[in-house]
Amino acid sequence: MSLFITTLKQRRQKLAQLIDIPVILWSGKAPSRNFRANRYPFRASSHFLYFAGISLENAVIRLENGQLELFIDDPAPESTLWHGETPTRDAIAAIIGADRAYPLEELLPKTAHAATIGVQDLATYQQQQNILNRPIFPSNAPKEIDLTLAQAIVTLRLTHDQEAIAQIRKSVKVSIEAHKIGMKSTALATTEAQVRGTMEGVIMAHNMSCAYGSIVTVHGEVLHNEEYHHPLQQGDLLLADVGAETQLGWASDITRTWPVGGKFSATQRDIYDIVLAAHDNCIEAMKPGVEYREIHLLGARIIAEGLVNLGILRGNPDNLVEKDAHALFFPHGIGHLLGLDVHDMEDLGDLAGYETRRHRSDRFGLEYLRLDRPLASGMVVTIEPGFYQVPAILNDSQRREKYQNDVNWEKLAQFADVRGIRIEDDVLVTETGTEVLTIDLPTQATEIERLC
Amino acid sequence: MSLFITTLKQRRQKLAQLIDIPVILWSGKAPSRNFRANRYPFRASSHFLYFAGISLENAVIRLENGQLELFIDDPAPESTLWHGETPTRDAIAAIIGADRAYPLEELLPKTAHAATIGVQDLATYQQQQNILNRPIFPSNAPKEIDLTLAQAIVTLRLTHDQEAIAQIRKSVKVSIEAHKIGMKSTALATTEAQVRGTMEGVIMAHNMSCAYGSIVTVHGEVLHNEEYHHPLQQGDLLLADVGAETQLGWASDITRTWPVGGKFSATQRDIYDIVLAAHDNCIEAMKPGVEYREIHLLGARIIAEGLVNLGILRGNPDNLVEKDAHALFFPHGIGHLLGLDVHDMEDLGDLAGYETRRHRSDRFGLEYLRLDRPLASGMVVTIEPGFYQVPAILNDSQRREKYQNDVNWEKLAQFADVRGIRIEDDVLVTETGTEVLTIDLPTQATEIERLC
Ligand SMILES: [Mn+2]
Ligand SMILES: [Mn+2]
Repeated sequence: MSLFITTLKQRRQKLAQLIDIPVILWSGKAPSRNFRANRYPFRASSHFLYFAGISLENAVIRLENGQLELFIDDPAPESTLWHGETPTRDAIAAIIGADRAYPLEELLPKTAHAATIGVQDLATYQQQQNILNRPIFPSNAPKEIDLTLAQAIVTLRLTHDQEAIAQIRKSVKVSIEAHKIGMKSTALATTEAQVRGTMEGVIMAHNMSCAYGSIVTVHGEVLHNEEYHHPLQQGDLLLADVGAETQLGWASDITRTWPVGGKFSATQRDIYDIVLAAHDNCIEAMKPGVEYREIHLLGARIIAEGLVNLGILRGNPDNLVEKDAHALFFPHGIGHLLGLDVHDMEDLGDLAGYETRRHRSDRFGLEYLRLDRPLASGMVVTIEPGFYQVPAILNDSQRREKYQNDVNWEKLAQFADVRGIRIEDDVLVTETGTEVLTIDLPTQATEIERLC
Repeated sequence: MSLFITTLKQRRQKLAQLIDIPVILWSGKAPSRNFRANRYPFRASSHFLYFAGISLENAVIRLENGQLELFIDDPAPESTLWHGETPTRDAIAAIIGADRAYPLEELLPKTAHAATIGVQDLATYQQQQNILNRPIFPSNAPKEIDLTLAQAIVTLRLTHDQEAIAQIRKSVKVSIEAHKIGMKSTALATTEAQVRGTMEGVIMAHNMSCAYGSIVTVHGEVLHNEEYHHPLQQGDLLLADVGAETQLGWASDITRTWPVGGKFSATQRDIYDIVLAAHDNCIEAMKPGVEYREIHLLGARIIAEGLVNLGILRGNPDNLVEKDAHALFFPHGIGHLLGLDVHDMEDLGDLAGYETRRHRSDRFGLEYLRLDRPLASGMVVTIEPGFYQVPAILNDSQRREKYQNDVNWEKLAQFADVRGIRIEDDVLVTETGTEVLTIDLPTQATEIERLC
């Protein structure tokens, strides 16, 4: 039996140890892009992928007592003309170690008392309700047996087995190549779009896809900037948050920030080194049992401290963090779970990110924290501190008043050429500490300059 | 008033001349990719784009008497943090020459007796039915006033105004660059995926997207092959069907087939020249009033004739086409409409492609013809003859029997290194004939070799 099948069977067994209800998971369908024959690339539901192992469109699995039944239709004879020979149901069943395999129409009689998780594509979601003959709450608010199932899956997917980690390493490797080539390509590029095309081209060349919409921008202060139309100018910093996903669906998530002209200015370098210090210290402090929230607060403190040293913030770093002054410049969380999803299991709302009975804070400095659990061996998380001058934050009159005396606004004005910096690595929690999976991509400013 | 707004107003006026019912069109929303914050790239509905001009997510337009009312919400204050400053409703209204603009909630009271076209994303489709308070048939089977609207839109979109043609030229230009760089990159590439990454990278570098899922394959005989895992080997032909789409949504659609090793073999060259002859003769024969179906049959006849000359087919070319023997090797249509969609208006089923009262043939050699209308000045169509050795066709026992004496199977076996060839150009029908919009990308075998 292949290692792949062994791993899949272990996942199925572990699920059976956690719950004793039958489970039915749908893979989903590719959405149409304006007309039916023009489809977005298919991406199977992550929960399906976790137990079925491979991407199968319009397939369903039924799990019970560690056994897997696969429901999928054989390709229509006519589809051979357009899509070539594709594997039969039985061949697929062998690949994934299914215990039995049936056409889709045989699912209906086997649905009694089964739990499921709502998928994202509405057509399949409606099918789920029709076939299970009951309302299904959306996946970010599961109820009753579906909540029980979601909690069991969270328990399993929170920490990764060797096969999963091997997949994440594969996607990380390609992402690193994309970033290195992206850095090198910047000297000859004149727009963000060109660097993006180069980086995503590398990912495609490895027959992988992007795990999320790439951010490649000289306006890093726009946090979710998925436009690429700005010209590159000497003196700009380019922030690239680009990550590959393997064919089996496992993600990576890497951000680097580099100088368009190949050299950081003195002010850029000063801020860069603060963000890097936060990054390094956070990773250093991680090990099983440590609260991720404390890692976030440590990152915040180091950023506050660095900004005090530069004269941008005034006062005691601990006090500044307590009043969320760091969040003026670092308004997001220090990172998140990584796995089959780039924000792993975010389809389940905060069920995966937040330990039972914990909830999002409404503090300005904590509300965007996506993970609030003690670290455990086998977790993969990102560490991604940043510094941004977000006009919507810094020009907000209430905030300006509240933090009037905490910020040296004249000093800050000297750092106008630092609009946005982020450094993001993917970190595996080990028995004793951490392994930085993205270690082969340098973070030091001088090494970044060398790669440009 | 800008040319852009003038054109949009003309389109709206022309619609008012064709129908006197109010029209409401939705732009749609980006589908989720496994969790809500991970979205596929947004693509607005083409009918919306045609009258609104630019891509606006979650927007609605209401057209009546040539006037356009825009319904869109201003960005939430909180979204500025994540997405930066985005234009206000009023700014957008000015860009597209809207006569009035309102928040979305003001749409409901203005929906009486309005026609619409069902969009592809199910969430918006449900919204359409809720807001119009009636069932809406899917766009490929519109009924009653929605059918009246669809027919009017087909009338408008069948031929293109100057602004549309300028957009198609823009996307063609980028696609040509992608193909040239793709050809040049092949010598150093070892997999299909690498060439695809290079070609799509060029499209992204121009801040455009792909109009459809790229085909880049050494197995061109799989007609809709959207996998890229095959290695490239000396002696293979690489078939690349790759087209860009402008930011305003206008498509291009180009296929070239080139030798991985830089030189066609004698057998490949023989077949290539037959496909090219079909391509050239079809374009030569096009002018307003000519039936596109006749162009298809002309292409079929030239392919049959060429194959007779090579000794692969036996008999009289006209008789061979009459019994669909050409379709053993050229099983698809000669092309299709091109515009905002790569298969323009295919969301409306055959309403655009087929003249009123015409329907798909069930003849093997005609059933995949997507366009059956007389050509008219301002139409843009593709011309894309091909030759394929599709195992599902050639090994089909019924077909083998039927065409037993029409094919010289031993002769055919000598052409085993020609699995799939297609040559596809985008052609504008002019007052007097045609203009090949893709003319700057060579089609001659020797010129292709020079580019490799
Ligand atoms: Mn991240
Ligand atoms: Mn085409």
